Amino acid sequence: MQENSFFNNLINKLTDLPGIGKKTAQRLAFYIMKTERAEALSLAEAIINVKEKVKYCSICFNLTEADPCDICSDPKRETSTICVVENPSDLNAVEKSGFYQGVYHVLGGALSPLDNVGPDELHLDELVRRLDSSVKEVIIATNPTVEGEATAVYLADIISKSGMHVTRIARGLPVGSDLEFADKITLTRSFEGRMNMK
Amino acid sequence: MQENSFFNNLINKLTDLPGIGKKTAQRLAFYIMKTERAEALSLAEAIINVKEKVKYCSICFNLTEADPCDICSDPKRETSTICVVENPSDLNAVEKSGFYQGVYHVLGGALSPLDNVGPDELHLDELVRRLDSSVKEVIIATNPTVEGEATAVYLADIISKSGMHVTRIARGLPVGSDLEFADKITLTRSFEGRMNMK
Repeated sequence: MQENSFFNNLINKLTDLPGIGKKTAQRLAFYIMKTERAEALSLAEAIINVKEKVKYCSICFNLTEADPCDICSDPKRETSTICVVENPSDLNAVEKSGFYQGVYHVLGGALSPLDNVGPDELHLDELVRRLDSSVKEVIIATNPTVEGEATAVYLADIISKSGMHVTRIARGLPVGSDLEFADKITLTRSFEGRMNMK
Repeated sequence: MQENSFFNNLINKLTDLPGIGKKTAQRLAFYIMKTERAEALSLAEAIINVKEKVKYCSICFNLTEADPCDICSDPKRETSTICVVENPSDLNAVEKSGFYQGVYHVLGGALSPLDNVGPDELHLDELVRRLDSSVKEVIIATNPTVEGEATAVYLADIISKSGMHVTRIARGLPVGSDLEFADKITLTRSFEGRMNMK
């Protein structure tokens, strides 16, 4: 096998993927070599299809095949509530739970100065432009991480200036967990966020 | 995003790869979505090329684009010595060290009854058929694992029946290591394999 062969080329391309090192790439390449022809080609086709046919919704920046996306173009969704999430995968998680009837705004990440992600790298301006009088509430559902919390505070500052109602999803004990094993910060947030029972 | 969308299809295809779970597949799919179009398409092309153009050498079962492979068709290689390895990646490792001038035979794995890999799943018959009078030595270079050692013993039994010279690569302390940190079995093998210094 020459160094510039098709096989080594595949290994190099796989190594470019995040979290895939030389050894894993080699293992994957050998798997692709061993697997059924149709299966390997359908993986290649899936990659091409994603690049050719999937784009970002021009309103909420969710991944979509049609613009605007299914959610933005659904007349049954309440456009008066916008749920702000970091990534399309977060949006999927909320959608799967099935209770949320509003629309979304995908930021495309969270503020992270160490990774060179500032406000300009996120879809913040586009969010502010969506905030007209028809919007009653903005629910900030960025992740409860350092970056997600910072983004939430930053967003709340901007949005509340326009007098809009801004809320943040509750941080507390996950259902089915145990106080004994909860970390300090989660427990603190869980007490801060306590609600009346009647 | 619909469940049967192109994006979810890519995630499913990636999940089929060994060692890639749902979360990793999602991360890779988002990376492919974000990355340059040309880069993603070249990954797809690399997969297609491997399936279309890379095959197994009909003599030694190494990966190759031409049959027989570069090594089998090289008149400078000594065909009187055959080095038996488990996989093409093992062959690459030996080739990189640069000292070996003989030819190879790739088994395609090692005997592993628990994984349903018996003698019929490996290229053993093809190896036996190569053993004519021109072959002077068979070097068994399967990995020093339980499976590799079992395969070596099995192979040595078969090959020595034809009166051929069979050798096994030395197992001992890796160069640059320390006796203090060597495991018992390696140390035992290292003493068993001791050589005269003059």
